Amino acid sequence: MNITFLFYQGMTALDAIGPHEVLSRLPGVSVQRVAVTAGPVQSCAGLILTADYALADISHTDVLVVPGAGNATNLTDSPDTLAWIRKIHDTTTWTTSVCTGSLILGAAGLLAGLPATSHWAVLDRLQAWGAEPTEQRVVEAGKIMTAAGVSAGIDMALILAAKIAGRHVAETLQLAIEYDPMPPFNAGSPAKADPAIVAALRARLLTKFA
Amino acid sequence: MNITFLFYQGMTALDAIGPHEVLSRLPGVSVQRVAVTAGPVQSCAGLILTADYALADISHTDVLVVPGAGNATNLTDSPDTLAWIRKIHDTTTWTTSVCTGSLILGAAGLLAGLPATSHWAVLDRLQAWGAEPTEQRVVEAGKIMTAAGVSAGIDMALILAAKIAGRHVAETLQLAIEYDPMPPFNAGSPAKADPAIVAALRARLLTKFA
Repeated sequence: MNITFLFYQGMTALDAIGPHEVLSRLPGVSVQRVAVTAGPVQSCAGLILTADYALADISHTDVLVVPGAGNATNLTDSPDTLAWIRKIHDTTTWTTSVCTGSLILGAAGLLAGLPATSHWAVLDRLQAWGAEPTEQRVVEAGKIMTAAGVSAGIDMALILAAKIAGRHVAETLQLAIEYDPMPPFNAGSPAKADPAIVAALRARLLTKFA
Repeated sequence: MNITFLFYQGMTALDAIGPHEVLSRLPGVSVQRVAVTAGPVQSCAGLILTADYALADISHTDVLVVPGAGNATNLTDSPDTLAWIRKIHDTTTWTTSVCTGSLILGAAGLLAGLPATSHWAVLDRLQAWGAEPTEQRVVEAGKIMTAAGVSAGIDMALILAAKIAGRHVAETLQLAIEYDPMPPFNAGSPAKADPAIVAALRARLLTKFA
């Protein structure tokens, strides 16, 4: 089984690395990282990651993972990448996204008529691509799986691991990464956080999606 | 405020990238990544990350984050890195580790007589460095903060963010990364997981720490 992570300039590293840490531990998988061109890609936080392959090198994958970014126009404006996503999607068993990666799947035309999730601050933007914004941590629609913001990719990857390799393996992976989360505050979703914090953060994030 | 992530061959990427995604969003911080030599470093899962600086370039930092690895002898056997950690620790406000990164802090001599945590499978190895193995998600001992396995670095980073910038900022960061975890299984710690899974995984992991 082959698992491909799409990398791009300005991506949010944790969107990709959360699932990468889980899925790369599945028995018998081969993992690759791909970008418009092979080589360095800088995350929105300044971290430089390396893409092993260029898009043109990869014509098939079993699992595709598309991370999000602080500014999703990075990729929704890239016709070549969107065309590649459409093409590779025809070959996948699972096509997945984390955070605003779902806006990229939407822009590629994969979400029309389907329920999907995204980062809470831009969830309604999915409507622009004909998707049904769905307030869930992880949404499954046929072979497409979308996760909510950033850290939700870890939950998605464990769900996906169970579908690929069974619950026993997925539980082993959860234990391997000691995923027994204990957030210090009750502020991880707009329903739980202080409304003033939600409003201020939403306003700040949306300036990057104007 | 300056935050430094130690990178090294064979490190577990999520140990570093979880805290990196949180701490790099603190207002007014400068984040840098350092390794024995500047340039590419490969994670245990094959991901190539870039260190911006060599150890010799960095003589001060406010916050140090040391990630773990599937095989902690990677660094506990490196006298130059351990000497650098000891030296930089004299300059820090916070010296932190994730997962088996605490074994590296221990090998550097920083944990003698102190409570600390680590990945559950090797927690007792802390005794070799005079530390008190402590079964907690995050352990604070003076200016040293250690986190349990892999994903625990996210919890630690949010606790640290609150200490550095206040609870309001930390809650904003938690909401920004939508850290409202919903693990699909109740298997994230040895106390919760199926005992057969714990035993098999412990045996497999310990072959790498023999």
